[in-house]
Amino acid sequence: MNATAAKLLVAAGDLMIERNTTDVSLSEIAQKSGVNAALVKYHFGNKDGLLLALLARDAEAEMKNLAFVLDMPISPTEKMRRHIAGIVNAYYRVPYLNRLIHLLLHQGSPATAKEVQRFFVNPLFNFVKRLLEAGVAAGEFRKVDPALFYISLNGACDHLFYGRQMNTYLVGSGGVTDEVRRQYIDHMTKLILGGLLTDKPGKPPD
Amino acid sequence: MNATAAKLLVAAGDLMIERNTTDVSLSEIAQKSGVNAALVKYHFGNKDGLLLALLARDAEAEMKNLAFVLDMPISPTEKMRRHIAGIVNAYYRVPYLNRLIHLLLHQGSPATAKEVQRFFVNPLFNFVKRLLEAGVAAGEFRKVDPALFYISLNGACDHLFYGRQMNTYLVGSGGVTDEVRRQYIDHMTKLILGGLLTDKPGKPPD
Repeated sequence: MNATAAKLLVAAGDLMIERNTTDVSLSEIAQKSGVNAALVKYHFGNKDGLLLALLARDAEAEMKNLAFVLDMPISPTEKMRRHIAGIVNAYYRVPYLNRLIHLLLHQGSPATAKEVQRFFVNPLFNFVKRLLEAGVAAGEFRKVDPALFYISLNGACDHLFYGRQMNTYLVGSGGVTDEVRRQYIDHMTKLILGGLLTDKPGKPPD
Repeated sequence: MNATAAKLLVAAGDLMIERNTTDVSLSEIAQKSGVNAALVKYHFGNKDGLLLALLARDAEAEMKNLAFVLDMPISPTEKMRRHIAGIVNAYYRVPYLNRLIHLLLHQGSPATAKEVQRFFVNPLFNFVKRLLEAGVAAGEFRKVDPALFYISLNGACDHLFYGRQMNTYLVGSGGVTDEVRRQYIDHMTKLILGGLLTDKPGKPPD
């Protein structure tokens, strides 16, 4: 990527973190980056283009991680552990990630929404779906609806980073520190796996 | 509550649902309600006052439900089932609920944030904490961190209603129908209880 374009993306991401909102204007982004506002249009076409590029940049590591985990010679349970840690870590690194997706899907053009589905929602959802199927086939997971599972897992993992004010109150004045991140990975892993694994007499009745 | 004040709250809530955002102005609320904008100030003081009153109105049923459930002569597991259904139903009725809390905590005055904690976050969190303790004491629940549990449960339940666009894509073009709501209650109950109950040999290792 062109250095000027990269600078604009850094400024956009930094502003979203500083302000705890995705509601930042192109002129604010240009000003923070020290880049002439006219160059936004040159590099990204419009705001949708810049936000899509930001999502692509931020999701790249996560997407690579998915393919890597899926191909590892480990059990579905182990893959799910890594996936849960991967999601919590992604939201930790990029706390505005879910809000950015939401913004693009709801306020972007239909073409933009389609693009977000193509390179973000689809691969993530397909990964989860395949992993759940593999887990059921291996006798490790009970059968769950992949869409509902996807929604609940992402909602739970994201929520630690969304409600910063409330969470500071709940998890302590230090906020979501690296230690809290680790605790949350541990919490979510136990909660999700404990609810997903078969082979337990105490399993709640249907 | 005064009829004019109630009208303003109905307009504010309807606008938030129609637009799928809490970003609505006082003049838009006044216009939709057919009430003179000057009366907002008279009834609620300012926007924080109106939004606080909206949250109080929307959370009232949920808060009554908490006290009712806690006093029922049923097991902690049964109480947790009802609590999960109660949360999903609350977000179904009031899909902007979490965004409204977020807005008040992050953009409201310190006094407003304190008020939200006093009448909303504190009672809800204390309910969950007491229920978790009762479940551990009864040998039904394993020990979990109440703050992390609270965050994950609310994040998961809310997420079905937050990402309307994405979820339409995931759960089908009908969106979050009453049937999807019921399925989600069932999904979350099994996921959370399965991860919370003791007495299962397949429990994931620590």
